[in-house]
Amino acid sequence: MEAPLPEELSAAPRPTLSRRALVRTGGLIAGAALTPSLVRAVTRQVDSTSALADPTRVPGVASDSLGTRSAFETPRLSPVGVTGGSSWTPHHLLHGTITPADLHFQRHHNGIPVIDPARHTLTIHGLVERPLEFTLEELRRFPSVTRTYFIECSGNGGRAWNNPKPDMSPQVVEGLTSNSEWTGVAMSTLLRAVGVKSSASWVVAEGSDAAVMARSVPMSKMLDDALVVYAQNGEALRPGNGYPIRLLLPGFEGNMSVKWLRRLEVVDQPLMSREETSKYTDPLPGGKARQFSFVMDVKSLITSPSYPGQLAEKGWHAVRGIAWSGRGRITRVDVSTDGGRSWHEATLPNGALPLAHTRFEHLWQWDGRATRLLSRAFDESGAVQPTADEYRRARGNAPGYHYSAIRAWDVAADGTVTFGGG
Amino acid sequence: MEAPLPEELSAAPRPTLSRRALVRTGGLIAGAALTPSLVRAVTRQVDSTSALADPTRVPGVASDSLGTRSAFETPRLSPVGVTGGSSWTPHHLLHGTITPADLHFQRHHNGIPVIDPARHTLTIHGLVERPLEFTLEELRRFPSVTRTYFIECSGNGGRAWNNPKPDMSPQVVEGLTSNSEWTGVAMSTLLRAVGVKSSASWVVAEGSDAAVMARSVPMSKMLDDALVVYAQNGEALRPGNGYPIRLLLPGFEGNMSVKWLRRLEVVDQPLMSREETSKYTDPLPGGKARQFSFVMDVKSLITSPSYPGQLAEKGWHAVRGIAWSGRGRITRVDVSTDGGRSWHEATLPNGALPLAHTRFEHLWQWDGRATRLLSRAFDESGAVQPTADEYRRARGNAPGYHYSAIRAWDVAADGTVTFGGG
Repeated sequence: MEAPLPEELSAAPRPTLSRRALVRTGGLIAGAALTPSLVRAVTRQVDSTSALADPTRVPGVASDSLGTRSAFETPRLSPVGVTGGSSWTPHHLLHGTITPADLHFQRHHNGIPVIDPARHTLTIHGLVERPLEFTLEELRRFPSVTRTYFIECSGNGGRAWNNPKPDMSPQVVEGLTSNSEWTGVAMSTLLRAVGVKSSASWVVAEGSDAAVMARSVPMSKMLDDALVVYAQNGEALRPGNGYPIRLLLPGFEGNMSVKWLRRLEVVDQPLMSREETSKYTDPLPGGKARQFSFVMDVKSLITSPSYPGQLAEKGWHAVRGIAWSGRGRITRVDVSTDGGRSWHEATLPNGALPLAHTRFEHLWQWDGRATRLLSRAFDESGAVQPTADEYRRARGNAPGYHYSAIRAWDVAADGTVTFGGG
Repeated sequence: MEAPLPEELSAAPRPTLSRRALVRTGGLIAGAALTPSLVRAVTRQVDSTSALADPTRVPGVASDSLGTRSAFETPRLSPVGVTGGSSWTPHHLLHGTITPADLHFQRHHNGIPVIDPARHTLTIHGLVERPLEFTLEELRRFPSVTRTYFIECSGNGGRAWNNPKPDMSPQVVEGLTSNSEWTGVAMSTLLRAVGVKSSASWVVAEGSDAAVMARSVPMSKMLDDALVVYAQNGEALRPGNGYPIRLLLPGFEGNMSVKWLRRLEVVDQPLMSREETSKYTDPLPGGKARQFSFVMDVKSLITSPSYPGQLAEKGWHAVRGIAWSGRGRITRVDVSTDGGRSWHEATLPNGALPLAHTRFEHLWQWDGRATRLLSRAFDESGAVQPTADEYRRARGNAPGYHYSAIRAWDVAADGTVTFGGG
């Protein structure tokens, strides 16, 4: 990162106060350039008797049974006009790395089932020594595993690639990925309990939704890091994310992390279901196709500034976003603030967990001219996020799934920010 | 941990299925001891046509604007009969390490203020070169910091110590501690921006609630790891936890992490306010008192089994809980399942972050006899959680704050679990 110069940020005018805030981003303060003003909080003249102007003037409200959001904060899973089988995480409103459970994206093929946890069980059968069925209470008696992982729909980003529009927000562009702390049982523990036969090579996972969603998972993945999870961000899963239990395959396309999991059949070949042939198979240039394209590619997304945001003034701004990869840990994210002519290595202020959303941040001094912001991520496997042209050459024009190329955000001279495609 | 013996867990009888689940906890399966039954999921006879009996029979519901909880999950901040200025995290219903934002405990001295974020500012003045006032938008332009920390009320545990009752749950016993991923600005960054004078040694932090809660914080803590946070678990703070900004002092008693933060005054001596003299000062044996008892001591809490839980049967169970310390990382947690005669080192299945709730787990084979469960935590400073007698000798009978001794849970022969004091 180039060393930023100190800069005074003149704040937007507000009626009651005259003040300026200094944002210090580097190692230096140029004292001579400052015009600090004495704070005059006690001289506010408008609305000084209202609770909103001075909340200390009236007693507050008592605690409720749940700590609800402020009326000034109204994040929603579904942007206006989008309903049904998908709902999307509003990344432009989020901070840090955890996606709140009620803002975790959802994708389902025949609605969210209502499941009584006292009736729900998980059956493991097929090529096993001891077919068994577990209640939730029994699953919770096993050693637990708690890990932070992203889940991303394989179709994430496809809409914005196929039909980009300037008024797409990060929620619309890449809202089908979310990041949670998951708690459950290692699949390897459960498979040891049933005793997998030597001829077994795949496991078919089946949900108890009305689509009876089913996918085949290689045994190697099941024995490596697959989980059966019953908790997300500290509490029971939400129904839209598989309550009471879901499969979790870290780094694999989201539909394979079968929700409302009810059955695991240990087999010696994949199911070759509709979801593994006509769907979730990616046509390539030349008439071939990628089947069993499980692993999600390395990606990044600038979440701020982004549409519908606006830069209030020139000066220092933080370019922030998330990066993730199904191949492991994010090792580096670069940001360009000049449309790709130059790149700056961003900081990763919270470090980087493997197979998890990773925050990046780059402090940028905007000169007030129109420009384009880009980000590109690198992972520990050596993979680098491609440009749209590079992506098209490798994967063609119409795979529909696993779009992963660099995205652009255009900043106009008036500070408005729009989606620039990619 | 002693090597557990394999044990068949006979599940509680259920009307529709005859089956047994094997819980494998160690490295061995004693095949000869097993009585696996073939799964008969397709032969269910009762309620087989209802959606609850088989959710695949009817289409599910569409995604809503938020992913709400299952109707079968109803965690609440306040147990029945407790309202007002405190609300408590239901630890016995939680998993993993993150406390969901709407289940983070709350303690406030004159209610929760309603704050318009567009009007809220943070003023830093006093012994500084450049007194400044920051809007939220300006705070967000600074480099961000994201960290996971617990916050614990200094009064946590006092009620259960002074008046223990068998029907106290972990929520009632130790519900005034919670753990979140916080995002904000390093206080050291803000203090560099205003230019602290050499005579400065304390900072008074003031909230904009109707109590105008104010506490003095040593400059050393402010420069070490203090944050001004605007986000919790990925999104804006909840009003009960300081929306739109709060101070965060990792490891210090919760009331010092001033919520609804509006002013920081850099000074050369502490405020000596009511909250630093008649409150939040701890009488000791012999007529002395601990003042400025900032750091929270090392503690642990078994959350399962606990009241109101019940062990359905003898056999393998996971003893789970949380441990935390204001002095750094948890290095070890011991569990006793025989009232303290012997201790077993628990696993820490999610590792241990400094100054954060840490999960521990111990697999225990219950023989069906009445017994007492205990846990004791160790931290990286070398501190060990004391027994109640050891605590009393050091701190006396009535400090009211900073209770930290070992807690007991009593298991009866019928499997019921009650709070055993401590």
